[in-house]
Parts: sequence; C-alpha cells; structure tokens
Amino acid sequence: MRNFDYMTPTRLIFGEGAIKKLPSVMSAFGKRVLLTYGGGSIKKIGLYDKVKELLKGYEIFELSDIQPNPKYDPSVLAGVKICKENNIDVILAVGGGSVLDCSKAIAAGAKYDGDPWDLITYKAKTPGALPIVDIITLAATGSEYDAGGVISRTDTNDKLGYFDEKLFPVCSFLDPVYTFSVSKKQTAAGCADAMNHIMEQYFCEDSTLLNDGFMEAGLKSLMINGRKCLENPEDYTARAEMMLCCTYGCNDIYSLGNSQSGWPCHAMEHALSAYYDITHGEGLAIITPKWMKHILSEKTVSRFVKYGVNVFGIEPSLGDFEIAEKAIEATYDFFKSIGIPMSLREVGIDESRIDEMAHHIAASKRLESAWVPLYEKDIAEIFRASL
Amino acid sequence: MRNFDYMTPTRLIFGEGAIKKLPSVMSAFGKRVLLTYGGGSIKKIGLYDKVKELLKGYEIFELSDIQPNPKYDPSVLAGVKICKENNIDVILAVGGGSVLDCSKAIAAGAKYDGDPWDLITYKAKTPGALPIVDIITLAATGSEYDAGGVISRTDTNDKLGYFDEKLFPVCSFLDPVYTFSVSKKQTAAGCADAMNHIMEQYFCEDSTLLNDGFMEAGLKSLMINGRKCLENPEDYTARAEMMLCCTYGCNDIYSLGNSQSGWPCHAMEHALSAYYDITHGEGLAIITPKWMKHILSEKTVSRFVKYGVNVFGIEPSLGDFEIAEKAIEATYDFFKSIGIPMSLREVGIDESRIDEMAHHIAASKRLESAWVPLYEKDIAEIFRASL
Repeated sequence: MRNFDYMTPTRLIFGEGAIKKLPSVMSAFGKRVLLTYGGGSIKKIGLYDKVKELLKGYEIFELSDIQPNPKYDPSVLAGVKICKENNIDVILAVGGGSVLDCSKAIAAGAKYDGDPWDLITYKAKTPGALPIVDIITLAATGSEYDAGGVISRTDTNDKLGYFDEKLFPVCSFLDPVYTFSVSKKQTAAGCADAMNHIMEQYFCEDSTLLNDGFMEAGLKSLMINGRKCLENPEDYTARAEMMLCCTYGCNDIYSLGNSQSGWPCHAMEHALSAYYDITHGEGLAIITPKWMKHILSEKTVSRFVKYGVNVFGIEPSLGDFEIAEKAIEATYDFFKSIGIPMSLREVGIDESRIDEMAHHIAASKRLESAWVPLYEKDIAEIFRASL
Repeated sequence: MRNFDYMTPTRLIFGEGAIKKLPSVMSAFGKRVLLTYGGGSIKKIGLYDKVKELLKGYEIFELSDIQPNPKYDPSVLAGVKICKENNIDVILAVGGGSVLDCSKAIAAGAKYDGDPWDLITYKAKTPGALPIVDIITLAATGSEYDAGGVISRTDTNDKLGYFDEKLFPVCSFLDPVYTFSVSKKQTAAGCADAMNHIMEQYFCEDSTLLNDGFMEAGLKSLMINGRKCLENPEDYTARAEMMLCCTYGCNDIYSLGNSQSGWPCHAMEHALSAYYDITHGEGLAIITPKWMKHILSEKTVSRFVKYGVNVFGIEPSLGDFEIAEKAIEATYDFFKSIGIPMSLREVGIDESRIDEMAHHIAASKRLESAWVPLYEKDIAEIFRASL
C-alpha cells in the first residue's frame, strides 16, 4: 500500500425529495446566489422553478448555456464577471458534471485578481473559492464529490483538469428522480464514463483486496444498473445505485493506497473532445478497449485476469492471455451493447488530426509516468486502432 | 435504496512516516494542546517522544491512563477540567479507539457549561467541540473516521454511544508501523470488532450490489490480513490494509443507502462490557454467531446465503438453510481460529447477571426497531447461548 493524504468534506444529501433541505443548506451563506446551469433541461423537468421557489428571499443571478466540455470562454469568464460585479456569496450549480466543473473554475476565479486561466494551469495558486452547492441531474462524472473540474479552451485546443482542495462542493444534492429524463445516449455515456473512472484506478501496479472488491462491485453494479436505466428510465433503484457508483468515481475512495495509474484514457480522451467536442463518455468507451489491448503484456496480464474473472465471470481455468483477451472483448461488447458508437469515425473523427492530437498529449510528458508509460507513438497507435 | 445525508470531513494522512505532517496540521490551531493517551504503550514505541519533539514550541498538557471502555469518571471529567482551566486550543489523541472516543467527549464537554453527561445522553445539544487530531496505534474501532464515541459510566453500568457531527476529528494520522507492537489478543479483537462493524451493516433488509461487494471485500480482507498480522506482526502491507478496513467501519461509507440494521450486536455487547469491562471485540465475536443463529429465518436466510457464498466461498448449489448454517459456523470458526475466547464464561461472565443485562438493554427499546427486532427475551436467549 502507498501512503496517501485524503479528504472529502462534501456533504451528500441523497434520495428522492432531498432538495427540501436546500434552504437549510443555503442558509449558511449570504443571500446573493449565482445559479449556473446548462441548456435548459432543468426548466423542462421543473427543477428551475422548484429552486426559485425554495430560494425565495435570495437575490439570484444566473449563468446559463454552460456547454458539455465546458468552455473557458465564454462560460468561466462570464461567471467570474458576474461574481465580481455582484458580490456573489455562493454558487448553486444545477445540472451535470459540466455545469459543476465550470462552476468550480468560476468559484476560484471570483477570488482571484488575475486571469483565471493562471489557476487552471497552476501558474498561480488558488487563493480561495466561493462556496459551491450543487444539484446533480446526470449520473456520470463524480464532480459532485471531488475537488476538480475539466475546462476546455477552444482557441488552444486545451482541455485541462484543474484540482484544488478549495473546490470541493460544500454540499451535493443527489435525487435520482432528476435523472429519469436523461436521454439514452447520455445515460450510456455516463455509465461508460463512470466505468472508465474505476478502470483508470483498477489497472495499476499495487492494489488491495479491499479496493479490488470495491471497484469490481462498482463495475458490476454500473453494468447491471446502467442497463436497467436504459431499459426503464424511471427505475428509481437502478438510477439511484448508478448515481452513487458515479459519485465515488473521482475522489480516490475506490482506490485509497493504490499506486498511481496516471489516468491514461482520460488524458487521451481530453484531446479528442478538445479537438472535436465529442461526448466525453463515448470517447472514453471507444479508446478504452484499444488502450487495454495496447498495454496487455506479461507485466500487466495478471490485472486483466483478475478483472476478467471477477467482473465478467470468465472461467479462471483458461490461460492468462486468453482470459485477458476475453475480458477486453467483454469490455468492448458491453459498451457496444448499451448503444455507444464504438469507433472514432462514428463520432466524426478521422485520421487527419491523429498525429497532431498525439503530439499535443505527449508534449506534457504526463503519460510517461503512467502504469504503462505511453509516448507519442503509443498514443497515435491507440487512436488509429480506435478509428 | 434509502435516502441519506452523509458527510465525513476528516482528513486521513496514511502510511509510514505520515506523522512528519503533524506540525503542519497542528499549525492551524493555537499553541495549547491537550495530549491524551492510554496506559503508556505510546511511550514504549517511542511515539510519545516523537510527538513531543515534533511539537516543540507548543504548550502541552496531558491526560494519560485512559482505559479501554473509557470512563466518564475519571477520564472525561478530568479532561474537560484540564481544557477549561487551561484554555486548550486543540486535543491530540494518541492511541486506540478508547483514547479517541474519550477525547471526543472531552472536546465537546470543554465547550459546555453543564455536566458533560447531558451531552452524552442527548439531554443537551452539543454546542461545539474543540478540534481533535489523532494518531492511531490500534486498528479496530474506526473512531478516527467517524463522529462518535462510546463512553462507560461505572456507577450506572451505562455504556453509551455518543454521536454528533461536531465530533469528527479534523485529521487522523494512520501509520501502520505504530500497530506492529499490538498484542495478538488486541490484534484479534480489533479484527473481530471491524468485522462486526461490517456485519452490522450487511445484515439488513435492503442493500445494493455496490455496498455488498464493498462489504464482502472488507470482510475477506480483514480475515486474510488479520491472520497475516497475527502470523507476522511486522507485515506492513497486512497491517496497512487491516487499518484501512477498520477506518471505514463506523462512518457509513460501507453502506450508504442501505436500510438500517440497528447495530444489534453492539447494543448487546455494550452491556457486557459495561457490566464486566471485557474487551469489546471479544464480546462481539462471542455473541455474533449466536445472534446470527437467533435471527436466521425465512425472512433473513437470503442475506446469509449471499454472505456464505461471497465471503466464505460456500458452494451455492446447497440448500439455503444449509448455506446459512455453514456460514454461521464459518464465522464462529474464524474467530476461534484467531485465538478469541469464544464463550462468555472464558471472559469471566456467568449466568448471574444475564437477565439484568437483558433488561437494561431492552429498556431503551432501541432493538425493537432493528432489522430483526429483539426484545428482552431474545437478548437473554442470545446471551445464554453465548455462555
């Protein structure tokens, strides 16, 4: 086991009707609220009106139209401007992970005098952040229980992860009912995203019996409950369990004490969606099995065997590489079976910018310290195999 | 899944050498520290001197001799007195769960003008608490990651759980090396305590695939690593994994969204150790298999089947009750195999006060709302079967 320093102070208020506690949570802050949301689905499901009703007496400013793969310009910059001009006390993010990620960058930017991009690139230390409360309407990213976000900048094709302990939400409201109306496409992508979060932690040098069991249960639960959510979008129990599996995704609780994996699929996918603005979970699902094939070797095979036997129930008496290959195939087949387009071409990405993207990712050298180090050539190979 | 409201803000600093971060953690508070500890084992392992060295420049007051099943009088009262008389800023608890439990009651008592027993019995609301930092030297109770403690009062034979969100430690240091010198008796009792914490959450009406997998992994890990710790007390990896399994024990993370079980074994064992001052983990190990037999029925058998198959690898093609009975037997056999005295008589408890203890427990009516309700007669039967 490796040493770790872990903290997740966020309060989770989970379950149908959870939102009734919103006024009591918000009462800890001032009366000036920045309400952030996306394209308007929160209006369709009545959540926008409900929030307004619960927060009578508050002065509510709004930032809407936050896009998937949330953008530095205009969203982060516009949010920071509203906060600074109006002395905002607290941000209430209502939506999926993109709204929340964007709100985290705004919360920090509001407390910083310079260009918020300095914070996202760690050129300046995050001096503080406005408190963030969120109401999650999409089970996927786990942003509601971590201290990070991912921000895209279209002018530079950057899509960067930004983490700082000051960015933990104070409180996350998780009501599975708000995810009933999530489309099949987004439900499947959310399931794949959350599964990949676990895989990124599972495939590493050192893990424990405890963490392996927890992660294998998370993967099995996501497959079973993800499928149930697709078959019956209003299956409360399935939506609820999927939501909790997703919530744990990125705050390390699945893998405390494990050696670092480097989160290679995320590093690679971030380039895909920065260049092509594709759905993050779909990009991950497409490259994951190809990455697995690429890293399968004598060094890594035992992890794939454990994964194959414990997650997919593959017969343990088979040969190690046979189990590993079947496990990779089963991973692909599962994503395919929930309707994810399983090639880059299907999501509009062709050969033309693969080398440029591989070069962009490799430039940070971050993946050179992944469990299985990846260089520019490896990344390009994985992308080509994913076409 | 059931609704929940969950938060655990404690920072965990885990691993060999973790303590080097103590000065930076302590620097957030004032300079007046109450150092609490038990019978002196922290002096034997050099931890007392190390702490003193790391906290040069602090004014350190001490409360020592905190006993297992920590006592309201003298320990809690003495600690509160020191805090009030010396304007203590922060409590540093160094030891096992008892030291930490006691320190939590002191931390709250220090902020309360009346008799601290009012807080423990919830006659008064906990107004606040001094910040608590701890260094754990025994893997068992999970007090380092929860907001509760258990305090005994010898004059009334009460042993009461006291929970309040204000009691979460600010930071828990977990260095497995400090557990190398824990005796075989205490290692086994700690393992049984942590296993029972999981069982108390596992045996309930509603659970999830995710939680079941997490808890089953926790139980298997505790059995495998607990045994390794007994065979080789300086096995770092085994001590480390056991420590983490224990840490999760009582803060609900193993079972978020599960229906309530009522923690019946703890309610019963608290009477045993209040009346006889036995080792908590041993008391739990003794009564757990007898409680299991007592509650086994058509209603509960499917949980025992899952437990038997997934934790002990019992052949799933057997009949349900056969699997359940084998699972209960395997539970007993495991505790026996790690050297725990498996009858009440072996720990000095005879027939004489069984009815009195059963009456005392039943008086609170708390176990009437357990998963399988227990009344005075049931409790007495479980105790007699444990003789």
